[in-house]
Amino acid sequence: MKLNLDSEDELPVFRQLAKALQQKILSGELQPGARMPAETVLASENGIHRSTVREAIRALEQQGLLHREEGKRKLFVSRPNTEEMSRRLVTPMVMNGVTFEEIWEAIRALDPVAAEAAAHRRDIDNLKALDDNIARTKAAMDDPDELVKLDIEFHELIAVAANNRVIQSLRLPISDLFYPSFQTVMTSLNASERLLTAHEKIVQAIKWGDAAEAKEWMIKHLNDFRKGYELASLDITGPAEFPAKAGE
Amino acid sequence: MKLNLDSEDELPVFRQLAKALQQKILSGELQPGARMPAETVLASENGIHRSTVREAIRALEQQGLLHREEGKRKLFVSRPNTEEMSRRLVTPMVMNGVTFEEIWEAIRALDPVAAEAAAHRRDIDNLKALDDNIARTKAAMDDPDELVKLDIEFHELIAVAANNRVIQSLRLPISDLFYPSFQTVMTSLNASERLLTAHEKIVQAIKWGDAAEAKEWMIKHLNDFRKGYELASLDITGPAEFPAKAGE
Repeated sequence: MKLNLDSEDELPVFRQLAKALQQKILSGELQPGARMPAETVLASENGIHRSTVREAIRALEQQGLLHREEGKRKLFVSRPNTEEMSRRLVTPMVMNGVTFEEIWEAIRALDPVAAEAAAHRRDIDNLKALDDNIARTKAAMDDPDELVKLDIEFHELIAVAANNRVIQSLRLPISDLFYPSFQTVMTSLNASERLLTAHEKIVQAIKWGDAAEAKEWMIKHLNDFRKGYELASLDITGPAEFPAKAGE
Repeated sequence: MKLNLDSEDELPVFRQLAKALQQKILSGELQPGARMPAETVLASENGIHRSTVREAIRALEQQGLLHREEGKRKLFVSRPNTEEMSRRLVTPMVMNGVTFEEIWEAIRALDPVAAEAAAHRRDIDNLKALDDNIARTKAAMDDPDELVKLDIEFHELIAVAANNRVIQSLRLPISDLFYPSFQTVMTSLNASERLLTAHEKIVQAIKWGDAAEAKEWMIKHLNDFRKGYELASLDITGPAEFPAKAGE
């Protein structure tokens, strides 16, 4: 595979190589699933050092455009998984000490707009999934751990019903960061009835296609989260903890 | 560096290794800037194959927790750069064909909440930066390219003034995707006066600490974007294009 590298270009050669390969992938000339030539082949065909090839490949792996099967060396073109890449934001956010307040504010921005959009784009399958979530929530009123899981699912279902993949992927890392502390709130306060009422009102408004009402109830519901956090004497300006499962 | 690996654990060994290293970094035992032992050393000290070590290192590089200087092999612990990692979402979003409408809706969610938060957290330096942006906008009313740059800067300054690092980083990839099309709108429509008015109203509301007014003007301003897009006969449900600069 001979690539278009320019010795006059001021970009480092490995970046030129990464860019040329990226363009081939974005243009569809290299399709997801295609096997990449070996490092040594790419190096000799382009008259560059193997370590330069390796560095370009590393950059494209980090963008999710190249992928190896676990434990194997063979390299394939891949379609990056937006959700997986979005979840990679959890670690830097924790290391940079983002607070519960910052996370809450971001959810408070995204989820009401998602509820509004869901009401505009009413879809029978999404409504069935929401009804089913509410039925299971009613059956779990005395089980805080299960309620937290169902609440996470509810908010994800709203983002799916919004039919907006950008909002769906942007909310993943903040949802991962938000819920460990929410678990503390649910086990220490009796908030299950308020949670169920809010969920029911949101779904009803979506069914009616009443976007303003869906949005308003989502805002009330998220304000309740924040109040619960304060009532549980947790510090909203303290740094968020690393969620147990995200390290795996 | 001997790590705690468990042969009974069902996780693949490279994941156990990655997790053990990640925990050392998150706990602060390994500090950003620390030099990592060589692959061969990690392999022999833990009685595992060098390719297993390489795979664990690759996973941590993808999370931004390990880093090499360009063109060098030496590996260092690093604090992941949230902004850089957030921008990595641009490529998967484009490859998955997200639409202008999805991107617009996500900005429409984040920026009004950012304007509201900026009014709550009035800060003199941030207000000076916004005033300066408006002065330069006034001087660029006949230069659509410059106006687009200043508008991108304005929205980033609002996110900074909101003092919310989560919103700041989540909006980066969508801002990168949003503005190429906005450039088309600005050059084909005469929207500069409306843009300036909206920016001035938003900054005035922030100065007064009037969060509701700041939010409302931001919503009007973003609705104008969308209308402009439709007036320019662009298809809001068409896939977003890859921004020219993001490939570099």
